[in-house]
Amino acid sequence: MKISQRATAMPSSPIRKLAGYAEKAKRRGIRVYHLNIGQPDIKTPECALEAIKHVDREVLEYSPSQGFSSLRAKLVSYYANYGINLNPDEIIITSGGSEAVMFAYMACLDPGDEIIVTDPSYANYMAFAISCGAVVKSVRTSIDDGFRLPSVEKFEEQITPRTKAILICNPNNPTGYLYTASEMRRIRDIVKKHGLYLFSDEVYREFIYTGEPYISAFHLEGIEENVILIDSVSKRYSECGIRVGALITRNAAVREAVMKFCQARLSPPLVGQIIAEASISTPQEYMSAVHDEYRSRRDFLLDGLNRIPGVKAPVPTGAFYVMAELPVDDTDDFCRWCLTDFEYKGATVMMAPGSGFYTDPSEGRRQVRMAYVLNRKDLGSALEVLSRALEAYNKR
Amino acid sequence: MKISQRATAMPSSPIRKLAGYAEKAKRRGIRVYHLNIGQPDIKTPECALEAIKHVDREVLEYSPSQGFSSLRAKLVSYYANYGINLNPDEIIITSGGSEAVMFAYMACLDPGDEIIVTDPSYANYMAFAISCGAVVKSVRTSIDDGFRLPSVEKFEEQITPRTKAILICNPNNPTGYLYTASEMRRIRDIVKKHGLYLFSDEVYREFIYTGEPYISAFHLEGIEENVILIDSVSKRYSECGIRVGALITRNAAVREAVMKFCQARLSPPLVGQIIAEASISTPQEYMSAVHDEYRSRRDFLLDGLNRIPGVKAPVPTGAFYVMAELPVDDTDDFCRWCLTDFEYKGATVMMAPGSGFYTDPSEGRRQVRMAYVLNRKDLGSALEVLSRALEAYNKR
Repeated sequence: MKISQRATAMPSSPIRKLAGYAEKAKRRGIRVYHLNIGQPDIKTPECALEAIKHVDREVLEYSPSQGFSSLRAKLVSYYANYGINLNPDEIIITSGGSEAVMFAYMACLDPGDEIIVTDPSYANYMAFAISCGAVVKSVRTSIDDGFRLPSVEKFEEQITPRTKAILICNPNNPTGYLYTASEMRRIRDIVKKHGLYLFSDEVYREFIYTGEPYISAFHLEGIEENVILIDSVSKRYSECGIRVGALITRNAAVREAVMKFCQARLSPPLVGQIIAEASISTPQEYMSAVHDEYRSRRDFLLDGLNRIPGVKAPVPTGAFYVMAELPVDDTDDFCRWCLTDFEYKGATVMMAPGSGFYTDPSEGRRQVRMAYVLNRKDLGSALEVLSRALEAYNKR
Repeated sequence: MKISQRATAMPSSPIRKLAGYAEKAKRRGIRVYHLNIGQPDIKTPECALEAIKHVDREVLEYSPSQGFSSLRAKLVSYYANYGINLNPDEIIITSGGSEAVMFAYMACLDPGDEIIVTDPSYANYMAFAISCGAVVKSVRTSIDDGFRLPSVEKFEEQITPRTKAILICNPNNPTGYLYTASEMRRIRDIVKKHGLYLFSDEVYREFIYTGEPYISAFHLEGIEENVILIDSVSKRYSECGIRVGALITRNAAVREAVMKFCQARLSPPLVGQIIAEASISTPQEYMSAVHDEYRSRRDFLLDGLNRIPGVKAPVPTGAFYVMAELPVDDTDDFCRWCLTDFEYKGATVMMAPGSGFYTDPSEGRRQVRMAYVLNRKDLGSALEVLSRALEAYNKR
């Protein structure tokens, strides 16, 4: 008995190994500042927490495979606030944004089909591609110009007869980059010209720091049937654990295909959907306060990072991540070393090595992704630890 | 843009089309007795419902990809009651039993690999196989001998160099058949001789009506590394909606492979896990009462069914389903007709046509699956409706 080649090809989460070292560090009494994961420390909205206490059901039964119609109807009103006009039938509720990505791939890609992502990108886009036998091609973005969208030519170099889709994450995980209006039009033009699907992961929509209105893939004219939106309530309401996301498309054939996979897995989580539905009523004050908190953390972290000798970090315009270049040759080694061999005043720092975000893991070796999901005081301490760690590491 | 061949090959749930007819019937004021779905009407245990009210968290954050260790530890005690000795590391929590099946396939099967199921079987085993490119071969069981396990020879006829696994569901959905000790040894011998994985779906473990102790795949000696157990809290605690299941195996390589898929989807549902953990403390009185309720429904339904002229239904020894043969040529048509063209005293009945449970949908055309998830009064009414419907259908 062997495990599948597919499983062998699946990347082991680089974080998982580091997490083991972090656990050991904690057992030695060391405080670990976690900048490695997109798990916000922000309190979930009160209306969401209250909803749990009022779940009034005698039988915790299956919900519809497409998700509760009341939740889908309420999401329609949420999207209307962003100038996206939907009807509830166009929304399919999934077990987190993750399942939405997986089902988009399953419905649109056959083994050997190709999908283009920008590099660096969220590691699980590649993992899901391996799960369904699809091939990920990538277009490099560069830290030197702040991870801007590459030219049309760079995309077209990657397009082959097997190319079926482009996937964007906007604002971007891991770079924190928000695509401009002109970049979004560029994406539209490529998608339209080559008849591709556009998978648009917009789970960080609430977190943009440019002051401009958010541009969704659904705002792009002329590719209405091409767009498959990936969404999730996880980040905007700080409720990553409830596993409620959505796959949204105006393309009826895609919806019908996706529903077959939805029916096979029966239904999305019942209580999570109740919580998500309540969350959509979160007061604007909460949303504004969270937004401002992240912006102030971003400003604080970026200011601190760029003061550390040899560190280079473009200021992210969205999400709550920054990709930073560190003055070391191998951040896989450095991130491990921080957990196994270093402490400063009883503390150390955990970051996600850059290599895990590149389709070719030999790239991004000098980069790390940091999530600013800690309060400023802790961010300040983490910055001090990082600064001392870099000094000590390079003097070994 | 096309949808994938994989999506095209995925079966549309036959129930889905019927569900549309059922909705229309309800809009015409007709009462529909739902015997078509394994959604129990049984009240969820009080301790599970109470647990929801006491979720005391400020941030609804990601849970571990493997599931909460407290839940896994408590499951160890649950399995110990069945003479299955595990350690928590051998248990991986999934989003329902469905995800456990999917991850077992993903970890063990490559495109073109074959898996053997008994026919009829749960339709989604085939759907998940299509999702990951695996090929389902089947060994027919027969209503005429109560859907007993076929001979070793029948299995061996289906084994090829690409065969990687046998999948059993015990007690069985859709037949309600519980494998005997000698049948389980037969399965063990085949699995051992040919070096196959044994995927054992045991979600109906609580519902056996023979008085004999339950035999799990984990009780079989000599194939410890081959067994991958699929489980779920859905049926035993009447909480299908919370989406909490488990994949359990002593095979460390398989666990490591499965964990890669678990990490890609981040985590199983948070609140569902809290509910599931509380559910394991359900008092024995509840479990016994539910068991006795199902047994009495089974007795009542089977007695009634076998009194209807031309109906043949072997008495199920487990689960809460029965596969019955009806005196009609095409149950797809008959089940639709019941919803579109028939009523008796303002009511009709919805059943799952047999064809949906066979790898070759041209088989099982005279069969239906009924789930006895209604109380006896409603079952009695449903039986009367069915009897009148058969009479009217055959007189058209």
